[in-house]
Amino acid sequence: MVSAEKEHTIGIVGAGIVGCLAALAFASKGYSVTLFELRPDPRTVDSSQRNLRSINLAVSNRGIRALEYVDKEMATRVLKHIIPMKGRMIHDTTGTKQESQVYGLNGECINSIDRSFLNNCLLEELDKSNVRVLFDHKLIKLDSKNSSRMTFIDNRGDSQVFEFDYVVGCDGAHSQFRYQLQRGMRMDYSQKYIDMQYLELYIPPSEDPDNKFSIDANHLHIWPRHNFMLIALANQDGSFTSTFFSPWSVIEGIKSSDEFLLFFQSNFPDAYKLIGEAALAQAFDANPRGSLMQVSCYPYSNGHGIILGDAAHSMVPFYGQGMNCGFEDVRVLMELIDANNGDIEAAFKQYSPSRKADLDAICKLALDNYYEMSSKVVDIGYLIRKKLDYTLGRVLKNKWLPLYTMISFRDDIPYARAIEIEKRQASILNNVQLGVVGAAIVYGLVKLGHHWNRR
Amino acid sequence: MVSAEKEHTIGIVGAGIVGCLAALAFASKGYSVTLFELRPDPRTVDSSQRNLRSINLAVSNRGIRALEYVDKEMATRVLKHIIPMKGRMIHDTTGTKQESQVYGLNGECINSIDRSFLNNCLLEELDKSNVRVLFDHKLIKLDSKNSSRMTFIDNRGDSQVFEFDYVVGCDGAHSQFRYQLQRGMRMDYSQKYIDMQYLELYIPPSEDPDNKFSIDANHLHIWPRHNFMLIALANQDGSFTSTFFSPWSVIEGIKSSDEFLLFFQSNFPDAYKLIGEAALAQAFDANPRGSLMQVSCYPYSNGHGIILGDAAHSMVPFYGQGMNCGFEDVRVLMELIDANNGDIEAAFKQYSPSRKADLDAICKLALDNYYEMSSKVVDIGYLIRKKLDYTLGRVLKNKWLPLYTMISFRDDIPYARAIEIEKRQASILNNVQLGVVGAAIVYGLVKLGHHWNRR
Repeated sequence: MVSAEKEHTIGIVGAGIVGCLAALAFASKGYSVTLFELRPDPRTVDSSQRNLRSINLAVSNRGIRALEYVDKEMATRVLKHIIPMKGRMIHDTTGTKQESQVYGLNGECINSIDRSFLNNCLLEELDKSNVRVLFDHKLIKLDSKNSSRMTFIDNRGDSQVFEFDYVVGCDGAHSQFRYQLQRGMRMDYSQKYIDMQYLELYIPPSEDPDNKFSIDANHLHIWPRHNFMLIALANQDGSFTSTFFSPWSVIEGIKSSDEFLLFFQSNFPDAYKLIGEAALAQAFDANPRGSLMQVSCYPYSNGHGIILGDAAHSMVPFYGQGMNCGFEDVRVLMELIDANNGDIEAAFKQYSPSRKADLDAICKLALDNYYEMSSKVVDIGYLIRKKLDYTLGRVLKNKWLPLYTMISFRDDIPYARAIEIEKRQASILNNVQLGVVGAAIVYGLVKLGHHWNRR
Repeated sequence: MVSAEKEHTIGIVGAGIVGCLAALAFASKGYSVTLFELRPDPRTVDSSQRNLRSINLAVSNRGIRALEYVDKEMATRVLKHIIPMKGRMIHDTTGTKQESQVYGLNGECINSIDRSFLNNCLLEELDKSNVRVLFDHKLIKLDSKNSSRMTFIDNRGDSQVFEFDYVVGCDGAHSQFRYQLQRGMRMDYSQKYIDMQYLELYIPPSEDPDNKFSIDANHLHIWPRHNFMLIALANQDGSFTSTFFSPWSVIEGIKSSDEFLLFFQSNFPDAYKLIGEAALAQAFDANPRGSLMQVSCYPYSNGHGIILGDAAHSMVPFYGQGMNCGFEDVRVLMELIDANNGDIEAAFKQYSPSRKADLDAICKLALDNYYEMSSKVVDIGYLIRKKLDYTLGRVLKNKWLPLYTMISFRDDIPYARAIEIEKRQASILNNVQLGVVGAAIVYGLVKLGHHWNRR
């Protein structure tokens, strides 16, 4: 690692998971870091006040590599709380059959963790660092001339100005930092809502003293129903965070919690029992409905300020890559700073063109994967093709990589490159499938010939 | 007009031209209106402090209709300052030839006015109204639950909360109101920068005591040079506000004011003399380069808050419709409130679907018109076709309307409808042109036949 220019000051906005990791990363290089957060310290807030709109995270290789890049021991401490998931568990409509579909060629896992739990872990790591963390600080102005002067108001309504050499925005899909940065540079930007809502549900720990998990902990559970779906990811206490996704018209067509119970019972009978009638009715009446938005922009920096994570590329959650990609943003940026011998401005400027294709690629994959999760996982053609894909992967080893493997288990293959490789493989797979069908026809004709000859 | 529900309070953000007109419009219906502006009162600011990034406005029928809808006498007072422009005046590269191309079929004009001058006129109208105008008030929060509570900080840094029944955002392309509104609703949004800069220039009044205008006041002057262009619009004091448009690479390729003078002299020799060497060099060194951005979003309202003008549809300036369209937004919204007997929420909700196609249409036309202004106006094919188009317009009267006429002189034809009509006419025009060419060929063959027969 290159020696840091200790005199540089860095201001980071947003103490979510990406902002925390960015703060730890800059601090580990010796920079003087201040981290601002709009909300109060989540560790001081009554947990009943949480927003009930979380979806569990699936940490995979890219996220882990970024954590380890910043601090290997820290990564170990944080990752001891994860629950590995080796595949999808598909639940049928009768509520009686479950089918495991593994993710990796060789048992690789993605890893479930509650977002706020991970966030708190990272905040605790920050407590041990030199980073100054200021909660209850709302960004209201970013000087766009040199992008290094920021004005905040605190929870008493007082405003205060802070100056930094470089500033970083990690304040999420609705980033105020990005909005302010845009005023002083030419940044193309788009946000687009997907016609889909999500509702957080909760499967409590089992009462069985021998197994606190009421369904297999080491799978990502899916109830695919084409137009809508339910998922569930395990937590360490035995509970599962479950999420119901549907188009807005579906949930808005359900007029009461009684109707919701009927709907749920007929579509997800086993989950109905796991969650419980009262909790389901309560969730329908009280939990907010989350919306899904895709954010895309370019460039990400003006040389003084930069945006990372959801602020730059909010994606739908269906590939489990939002957090992994945000963490990878931090690692990629840090490696650019290393490569430029600590010249942050040069690194900020190189980041946009070097990162654009990969961010576009994963945002598109995330959107496409809804169809895979909600429908294709029960399609026989898809399952045959996947079998073939994975067989080739096992036989040809590194010469053939299923897309899911490249995205989730290969942090060394950039997202855009993974799509290129997948395209090439898909065209080969088409030919193989045609070949198989052709061979089957020839085989059939030959058999028919035998049959005729034998008559 | 429908009687107003006097008890309703309206908060409007942005005292630019659209915000001022919206405030006057709501006030004229008897609502209690407060208008907030981030900047200080422009009438109290030293004019040397202005941002030097203005392009004169071209007021045409849609803008005039909206002004008159709000108050006919007010419209007369405001419009007495305009300078009518009956056509484009094309300046050739030698600096010696000018050619007039009229806009209307029957001498209709668009009308030049300085933006800040118009803004000040409207602020003076507000002084005479019941509207409460608060300058130096920066919006920092809009309550997204019901979109009617807004927090501002003033120039002393004090924050204050205001509550309204309905709120309106007219705070321009970089709207903070829109940003805040987006946080509480599902609004698709995109902003895209066009690869083009503009530089404000200034042609002073003539020293001729008999004519204060050094070029014809009643034309929009254009120096079309394909990849870049210069325009000039008259002001009442005899000066012209001139604007140089080019791709960023062109202006960034010019490294000094000396180089700029050489560039300008060889491309715009007559304008070079009109502006003057010293002023040109000074403008190149000191004036900021404006950028051009297109903004598009949907929907424009959540039923409590709404965005109008550039906040909802910033467009490039090449059709002269930005201000006209923003004023039309106000008129369309007010007519919806009338149609709903003062039910503002219903009007806000109907506004988005009823306005979307027209806003998309004019944004696209504005972009396309750069090519017309900078290149096509000197293309012989275009000029022949335009002649044919206008001849048909004069002969067939209301049955044939050139696009420019429909956009600029017919406030009764919505933008999207104008494009539909134009498409139909264009296909007829293609057939007519083919017919003319065909007839010419037949005529030529007949002549040739005569020739051969006579041999």
